[in-house]
Amino acid sequence: MKRVYNFAAGPSTLPLPVLEQAAAEMCDYRGTGMSVMEMSHRSKVYQDIIDEAEACLRELMGIPENYKVLFLQGGASLQFDMVPMNLLGAEHDLAYYIVSGSFAKKAAAEAKRFGNVIIPASSQEYKFSFIPETTPEMFKTLADYVHITSNNTIYGTRYAKLPETGGIPIVSDMSSCILSEQIDVSDYGLIYAGAQKNIGPAGLTIVIVREDLIGRKEDIPPMLDYKVYAENGSMYNTPPTYGIYLAGLVFKNLKENGGVAAMEERNKKKAALLYDYLDQSRLFKGCARKDSRSLMNVTFVTGNEELDKKFCAEAAEQGIVNIKGHRSVGGMRASIYNAMSMEGVQALADFMEKFEKENQ
Amino acid sequence: MKRVYNFAAGPSTLPLPVLEQAAAEMCDYRGTGMSVMEMSHRSKVYQDIIDEAEACLRELMGIPENYKVLFLQGGASLQFDMVPMNLLGAEHDLAYYIVSGSFAKKAAAEAKRFGNVIIPASSQEYKFSFIPETTPEMFKTLADYVHITSNNTIYGTRYAKLPETGGIPIVSDMSSCILSEQIDVSDYGLIYAGAQKNIGPAGLTIVIVREDLIGRKEDIPPMLDYKVYAENGSMYNTPPTYGIYLAGLVFKNLKENGGVAAMEERNKKKAALLYDYLDQSRLFKGCARKDSRSLMNVTFVTGNEELDKKFCAEAAEQGIVNIKGHRSVGGMRASIYNAMSMEGVQALADFMEKFEKENQ
Repeated sequence: MKRVYNFAAGPSTLPLPVLEQAAAEMCDYRGTGMSVMEMSHRSKVYQDIIDEAEACLRELMGIPENYKVLFLQGGASLQFDMVPMNLLGAEHDLAYYIVSGSFAKKAAAEAKRFGNVIIPASSQEYKFSFIPETTPEMFKTLADYVHITSNNTIYGTRYAKLPETGGIPIVSDMSSCILSEQIDVSDYGLIYAGAQKNIGPAGLTIVIVREDLIGRKEDIPPMLDYKVYAENGSMYNTPPTYGIYLAGLVFKNLKENGGVAAMEERNKKKAALLYDYLDQSRLFKGCARKDSRSLMNVTFVTGNEELDKKFCAEAAEQGIVNIKGHRSVGGMRASIYNAMSMEGVQALADFMEKFEKENQ
Repeated sequence: MKRVYNFAAGPSTLPLPVLEQAAAEMCDYRGTGMSVMEMSHRSKVYQDIIDEAEACLRELMGIPENYKVLFLQGGASLQFDMVPMNLLGAEHDLAYYIVSGSFAKKAAAEAKRFGNVIIPASSQEYKFSFIPETTPEMFKTLADYVHITSNNTIYGTRYAKLPETGGIPIVSDMSSCILSEQIDVSDYGLIYAGAQKNIGPAGLTIVIVREDLIGRKEDIPPMLDYKVYAENGSMYNTPPTYGIYLAGLVFKNLKENGGVAAMEERNKKKAALLYDYLDQSRLFKGCARKDSRSLMNVTFVTGNEELDKKFCAEAAEQGIVNIKGHRSVGGMRASIYNAMSMEGVQALADFMEKFEKENQ
C-alpha cells in the first residue's frame, strides 16, 4: 500500500487507522453480517453508531446541554441558505456578515435572499489577506446574528479572537477548523461545518445550535428546518449513514489521541514549522497577514509563477501532493488539517528548504 | 466474515463484490496513495470517477442526450421541495400529484408550499394497497407536471403502466425501483431517486432531468437549483464524493451482470417466487392488490400479530433479517432490491414454508 502526504484543501487526508478500520468492517460490521452502508437507519445497531458519534463530539468540544448536534447534508453551501431561513427575521430582520473570504461573501449574498444584511467589515479589497477588524460599535443595531467564517480556507486566515457583538449570537462557518483548536461553544449561537476537512467524508454537515435559536420561524420545508432535525434525532429521512459512521471513527481516533487540547498543540507546532520557515526564507513568502494566519491552511508564493509550478511538480514527485494554491490566490497552499501528521509537514518543510537551495 | 440475508427497505443490501472492492481500495485507490474519500473533488482522478459513474448510468438506463444526470444530496425528501421549486409555476402554476403511498402524500404536501396542486387520484382510503387508477380526462387542465411514485416502498405497490397525461411531463420518484426494470427515460420529464436502495449509500440522490425543464424559474438558492448542478457538473460545491464512487461501482457491477434487462428478469423471478408462494399459502397473505404488486417490496401478513412477530424472530435466527413490515402496514416486508440474490429469496421462501408447516 502506498500513502502520500496529501495537502488537499478538502476533501482531505483522514487518519489512516480510521480508514483501515472502515476497510476491515466494510463487509461485516462487528458480526452483524452487513456493512454499515447496508443498515437500516432505524435499527438498534445504527442508532448506537449515531448516538456514539454525537456523544464523542459533545465530549471533544465540550458542547453544553442546551445545544443540539444535528447531522445534515448539503455542505456549508446549503447552510448559507439554511442559516438565514431559520434565523434571519426571527426577531430583528437583520444579520451582520463579516466578509473575510470568498465563502463568507457567498454566505452574505445568500442571506440577502431572506432579509436585511449589513456587512460591517470586509477585507475583500485586500484580496482577503487578513481578518477584517471589528469594533463593538459596528453591532449597535440589534440583529438576529453575526456571521463569521472562523477559518478561511482559500487565503489561509483565521480569527485570532472573536468579534465583540454585545450579545448578538455569533454564527460561525467552521468547515475548515472545527476540532482543530479548543473553543468555547457557548460563545456561539450556531456552528456549522462540512465534514470533508476535519471530520470525515464529504456529504455530511454538522450543525451545533443553541436550543433557543431553533424553531423561531414558521413554514420552512422540513429538510431545511433545524427544528425537524432536532425533533427527529437527525432522522426525519435517511441521514448520510456511512458518513456519520466515519465521523464517529474520526472522533474516537481524536479522543484516543488526546482530544482537542492535544490536537491544538500539534496543530500549532505543525503551522509554526511552516510559518517559521517562511519568515526566514528568501524564496518563499507567506500570503496571509501575520496576525490572521490560519493553523489549517498555509498559503505561500515564490513571486514567480513558473517557479511555483515547478515547486508543485517536484513536490508531487516526492509524494507531497495537492499543494497548488487556489486560483484566486495562486502559489501554494498546504492544508494541514488534523489528520496531517507532523512527519508530513516536516517532509514539506524539508522539501521547501531543498528547493530553495536549488533555486536561489 | 459473516453475511446475512438483509431484507431491509433501505438502506439495504449491496453487492458483496462492490463492498469488497471498496474495502480493498479504501486506503490507496489504485496507486494514488489516498482513499477516494480523501481526494479533492477537483482532481483529475476524481473527475474520472464521477464521469465514469455517469457514463455507466447513462448506458444502463439508455438516458437520451437531452437529459442531464445530476448528483445531489438530501434524499427524495429534499426533492419533494426541489421539484416544485424548480418546476411548479414555470408555465401553468399547476401540478398533479397521484397519491399512491405515504411518500407520494408527503411530496404532494410539500408541493403545496410552492403552487397549486391537484390530486386526481388517491388510494389513501384503501391504505395505499394499490396504485389508484387514472384516466386521460383527469389531466385536461394544462399543468407543469404530473408527479408519481413509481414504486411504493411501504405498501409494496408498483405502477404496471404509466398514467396517460396527454403530454404533461411525468415526474417520478424512483427511489425504490430505479435500475430494477427497463424503462424508457423519454417517457419522463424528471426522475429522482435516493441512492440507498438500488444505487449505493444513503446521502446521494440522483436526478435525471430533461434539459428543457431546467432553468425555468428564477431566484432559487443555488443548492436547490437544478440549473446550478447542471452547469457545474454537480460540483457547485463538494458533492458526496464517496457515495458517487460507490454508486459507480454498483453501476459497473450491474453492467457486468447483464445490465438492466438481465436484472429485470432476475427481479421478476425473485418476486414471482414469493408471490407464487403467497398465493397458495394458507397462513400468509400478500397485502398489495395483485395488479399493483411491487417487484422490490413484497408485503405479507399472517393475520395474527403474535405470529408475525414470531416469524420475524425465527427468521432472524436463520440469518434472514429486517423482514418486519412498516408500522403502518404491519406484518412482514421483504425488500428484494437488485442486490438481493435469488439464494436469499429462496432461503426466505423455504423458511416461510417451514414456518407454515410448523404453525398450522
